[in-house]
Amino acid sequence: FVVLVFFLVVGTGITLAPPSFSGKLLVIPMDGSHWVAIKALAQAMGRRGHKVTVVIPEVNIRMGPGKHYDTVTFPVPYDKASLNIIGTNKHLMEKSSESFIQDMRKRFAHMQRIADFLHTTAESLLFNATLISHLAEQGFDAVLTDPMVPTGTLMARKLGLPSINLLRGIPCLMDMKAAGCPSPPSYVPRFFTGFTDKMNFMERTINTLIALVEPLMCRVLYKHFDHIAYQFLGEEVGIAELLSDSAIWLQRYDFTMEVPRPLMPNIILVGGINCNVRNPLPEDLESWVSGEHGFVVFTLGSMVSDMPVKRASVFLEAFRQIPQKVIWRYTGQIPDSVPDNVRIMEWVPQNDLLAHPGARAFITHGGSHGLFEGLCHAVPMVMVPLTADQPDNAQKMASKGVGVVLDIMSITTEGLLQGLNAIINDTRYKERVQKLSAVHKDRPIDPLQLSVYWTEFVMRHKGAQHLRAAVLELNWIQYFCLDVIALLATVLLVFVILTVKCFKVCLRKLGRKRKQE
Amino acid sequence: FVVLVFFLVVGTGITLAPPSFSGKLLVIPMDGSHWVAIKALAQAMGRRGHKVTVVIPEVNIRMGPGKHYDTVTFPVPYDKASLNIIGTNKHLMEKSSESFIQDMRKRFAHMQRIADFLHTTAESLLFNATLISHLAEQGFDAVLTDPMVPTGTLMARKLGLPSINLLRGIPCLMDMKAAGCPSPPSYVPRFFTGFTDKMNFMERTINTLIALVEPLMCRVLYKHFDHIAYQFLGEEVGIAELLSDSAIWLQRYDFTMEVPRPLMPNIILVGGINCNVRNPLPEDLESWVSGEHGFVVFTLGSMVSDMPVKRASVFLEAFRQIPQKVIWRYTGQIPDSVPDNVRIMEWVPQNDLLAHPGARAFITHGGSHGLFEGLCHAVPMVMVPLTADQPDNAQKMASKGVGVVLDIMSITTEGLLQGLNAIINDTRYKERVQKLSAVHKDRPIDPLQLSVYWTEFVMRHKGAQHLRAAVLELNWIQYFCLDVIALLATVLLVFVILTVKCFKVCLRKLGRKRKQE
Repeated sequence: FVVLVFFLVVGTGITLAPPSFSGKLLVIPMDGSHWVAIKALAQAMGRRGHKVTVVIPEVNIRMGPGKHYDTVTFPVPYDKASLNIIGTNKHLMEKSSESFIQDMRKRFAHMQRIADFLHTTAESLLFNATLISHLAEQGFDAVLTDPMVPTGTLMARKLGLPSINLLRGIPCLMDMKAAGCPSPPSYVPRFFTGFTDKMNFMERTINTLIALVEPLMCRVLYKHFDHIAYQFLGEEVGIAELLSDSAIWLQRYDFTMEVPRPLMPNIILVGGINCNVRNPLPEDLESWVSGEHGFVVFTLGSMVSDMPVKRASVFLEAFRQIPQKVIWRYTGQIPDSVPDNVRIMEWVPQNDLLAHPGARAFITHGGSHGLFEGLCHAVPMVMVPLTADQPDNAQKMASKGVGVVLDIMSITTEGLLQGLNAIINDTRYKERVQKLSAVHKDRPIDPLQLSVYWTEFVMRHKGAQHLRAAVLELNWIQYFCLDVIALLATVLLVFVILTVKCFKVCLRKLGRKRKQE
Repeated sequence: FVVLVFFLVVGTGITLAPPSFSGKLLVIPMDGSHWVAIKALAQAMGRRGHKVTVVIPEVNIRMGPGKHYDTVTFPVPYDKASLNIIGTNKHLMEKSSESFIQDMRKRFAHMQRIADFLHTTAESLLFNATLISHLAEQGFDAVLTDPMVPTGTLMARKLGLPSINLLRGIPCLMDMKAAGCPSPPSYVPRFFTGFTDKMNFMERTINTLIALVEPLMCRVLYKHFDHIAYQFLGEEVGIAELLSDSAIWLQRYDFTMEVPRPLMPNIILVGGINCNVRNPLPEDLESWVSGEHGFVVFTLGSMVSDMPVKRASVFLEAFRQIPQKVIWRYTGQIPDSVPDNVRIMEWVPQNDLLAHPGARAFITHGGSHGLFEGLCHAVPMVMVPLTADQPDNAQKMASKGVGVVLDIMSITTEGLLQGLNAIINDTRYKERVQKLSAVHKDRPIDPLQLSVYWTEFVMRHKGAQHLRAAVLELNWIQYFCLDVIALLATVLLVFVILTVKCFKVCLRKLGRKRKQE
């Protein structure tokens, strides 16, 4: 009849009561940083006794098995080496010596390579008939996916399952459109603009123009997937339409970082989802970071594997001049002279380090995961945004006064030192980030638990039909009531014309009458 | 630094951990059914150790002291007798023998009396200088109010306090407008229309027309309060503007009953807030209702104190023919022959009765509180809507298949009997209401606890500034980007004109050239 959910206190976090059922969840994740949140939710669902199956390509960047879920792999027609080429984003760190046109061409070619790689991966899964029929037999209750690459969305349709989306957002706002959510360009800034919700006339004009071309951008971005959809499903249905069937949208979005905006009932905000996914530091790291001056955490995300030696020296020279220790996650070539207070590691437990009371500063590229972790543990930040949503994210955090933004292309030792000294020694940064962190964490339920709740809701009720807005059945003429406005305008026009005509006739008659007199 | 909130299991409900602070809450409630939810929240806040002060008029319908809050009363220039006149809504139960015009005039006069009464009550509080300065000295953290009558909103402004609104909604949608929330008329049905979110062209046209006149309706409804605002605050500020300063909107709205629609970040849905506010039945009632056939609960809300004897007999004759017992909340003249299975009471513990496993059916006027209680405890309903939002509510519930709607003006014993038999004996009604009830209750947190959470949030952080959308700083030209559209249209027009001109000049030159040849 009804599933009453109780809450139990476990450690410092909030944990839902054991579920009243054991379901089967199919997870189609995305690679790279997108994997982090999906993995956290997959683990949490597995820990609650559900059978969780994660489908990943044999060759991938960072996805892999975990304690609480099974993995199913599928072959792909590329090897680790070609994947690594996609992973090196050297152009983000180095000023190009080439002409603008050549540079643009190179960047575009790189993006095209990434797109091709995503399409190939999707096709390798979807057109693997054996695997698909194997999955179809498992009797899953729902699909969890990051719909930026809509492989999971296509799979959900094929298997007739409801889908739960966990994502940061789709740049052309296709996620919001698919959820039927209004995003007024007058105060909802578009991706890559760096605008806040308070825009002047010029900014509003640019924002509106971007909003106008968004549908076109979506078309271009998802053209190949529309084609895959037709081949895979055998029906004329676009990705946009498929996405609008999603049961729940778990958005990694939070109002301490982003602007307050309208939301639809099935959009659940889970920004900071992996804040509480943490472990104690390994003993050697714990003893190394301990010290009266604390330490700085320096990571640039998993998409940057290498850095020009000159640029690396800029950082190292700055670190040499601060009393704090520095932990640097770096997989590239290590420069010759590394100061004693710097420890370079191929991988760092970033969230655990930031949660450590000794963390004084966080040098980050401004990826959303890192920023949410810094915010969660109230560590002021030096942000060196590189690509994607990072410049926007960094701008937003800087506008809250919890960090400074530096340009990676023109960064100097002095500039970095100034930035570090400011956020470490000027207590106002720490105070502001503590205040913002307090508000960020002051939510009725931890976002990971909330994600678990709604994922189980979809599994229990075979969807979330009661949250589906009727806007999804309307075309845009109906949505904006253009037909109604046309009718009303016509009625008004006819009324005005008739009134004028009547008036004229009356005047004429009156004139004639006067003449006769 | 940060207030970590733990959840503890208490009984069948979910209770927040004890608060980390003890605050002071000022409550300015509304009378009648509006009091029910406010009282529940005031009690809950008091139980958590906050000092809760409820300000009520000396003469009122149903407000009064409680265990966990203090009351402060203020004198009003009316007595209980005149209040009772407002409370008798006989015209809702009886077909008028008068002409349509006379009938309308009477109804309008009655509404005017209610409005005058609300204004008088508000003025009695706001212009009671001694009381105001007494309240100002108490050092409250926030104001909790039902802003349909904006006395509390005015008080919050005067005392410089953040406000929490707990309400069902304001008919002209002023609440949504004040929160900056879009309500597209294409799928958000307006009050009193009885439309769902799936409207045909004609319905959409009517809905749009109502949406167009809403601002005017708000103006008329709150004209006198605008005037009070000027006198009380000494500044030119309308109620609409004051309301837009509200920190949190706790809306008694739920998607199992209402249509899914866009919401703003500071709108928190708490439909069903008093579902878990319950006690065991008194012993005599418990033993009376026990029996193999169960019982029917019959209430028409606190605004109907009396009923024409003829209409009362219709009900009694139907009750005589069913095996169930009937508990009828009724304060009017009791007819001569009351069947043995009917018990008439001046007041009933409605929620406790509906929560009883013996409850088979609920005859209700369709007030939101009653419907939420029926929904919460999965009791199928016979609805006889009278006024206000009741016809809309009843229509919505009937469309979900959990009850039937009867017209109070033309109700017959046979019709009622048929309705009762259907919902009691046709198991589909029970099954549907059980399913809907399960979805209704499947929420991460009980709505009363959620209301407590956000009320405390506002007290902790002196508001909820991070949830305030920038739309509230925009005028409607900026909001709809009409200035941007005008600019873009002008640019486009100039471009087209220039192109046409160029083309003409070219053609002319070409023509001349040809001629010369």
